Amino acid sequence: MSGLDREVGLHPDLAPFAFLLGMWVGEGGGVYPTIQPFGYGEEVVFTHVGKPFLAYRQRTWALDDDRPLHGEAGFWRAREGGRLELVLALSTGHVEIGDGAVHGHRITIQSTSVVGAPSSKRVDAVRRVFEVDGDTLRYSLDMAASGEPMQRHLDAALARRDG
Amino acid sequence: MSGLDREVGLHPDLAPFAFLLGMWVGEGGGVYPTIQPFGYGEEVVFTHVGKPFLAYRQRTWALDDDRPLHGEAGFWRAREGGRLELVLALSTGHVEIGDGAVHGHRITIQSTSVVGAPSSKRVDAVRRVFEVDGDTLRYSLDMAASGEPMQRHLDAALARRDG
Repeated sequence: MSGLDREVGLHPDLAPFAFLLGMWVGEGGGVYPTIQPFGYGEEVVFTHVGKPFLAYRQRTWALDDDRPLHGEAGFWRAREGGRLELVLALSTGHVEIGDGAVHGHRITIQSTSVVGAPSSKRVDAVRRVFEVDGDTLRYSLDMAASGEPMQRHLDAALARRDG
Repeated sequence: MSGLDREVGLHPDLAPFAFLLGMWVGEGGGVYPTIQPFGYGEEVVFTHVGKPFLAYRQRTWALDDDRPLHGEAGFWRAREGGRLELVLALSTGHVEIGDGAVHGHRITIQSTSVVGAPSSKRVDAVRRVFEVDGDTLRYSLDMAASGEPMQRHLDAALARRDG
């Protein structure tokens, strides 16, 4: 097979983002004018292969019966000056490109393009904020979608998990 | 944690795509007018969580020294009549939406939108064909990029792998 499973050194351009690496598990909640408020469980995984991008994937599930809800996967490409480019695919039928910046252990990403497959709901823009404090990753997600203006959609707190 | 790791039944809409599920490992080769021909190793993984989409991820590496080359991740959303919507993020800084159809064990996907992050190379369109014969997955990828017309870029043959 391949040596990709060996331990590889972190690309130096990823140093400002290294605090994200690993697996994070926890819970969040969602609100939006067009839906009923809901809670969810979530797993987020950041990995790297020695190149100047993080691979990101996440999945969520309902807290009452563990049924799967949502999934995302993509790449966080490190750029100069603590900036990043996000390229993301969502199980809801959207793809997203974002422009981000890291300051300490806080990362803000603003979408520059959101495109939906024909069967997806309309999403115009997304703003994501990730912050790590010790072994806790908190994020929030604001969204302009379904004709509604940009506003809070998700908040979650996840704990670092080995493995 | 969550019940997502339990065995869940396949969503009936995924039945026409079930032949893709699992891990595939093998080798491919790439050509394009703007680059030197190259060979690569590759791993492709299709999973599901009981909802009507496949999660897809792949990564490639150089055959000479196993250095990582490329990665993709996204979702194949089953639609009526053996059609699918592809939403995909690529480590090269692109996102892609595709319109696909399955006929037997052959799937053809034509991009309807390719968007690149600012630092990415120009890609205008992608056409992917996947075909499974027994325990072999073959795919080809045609691409219009860097000002060149649509033409063959990649061919690979992968073998089904447990696990």
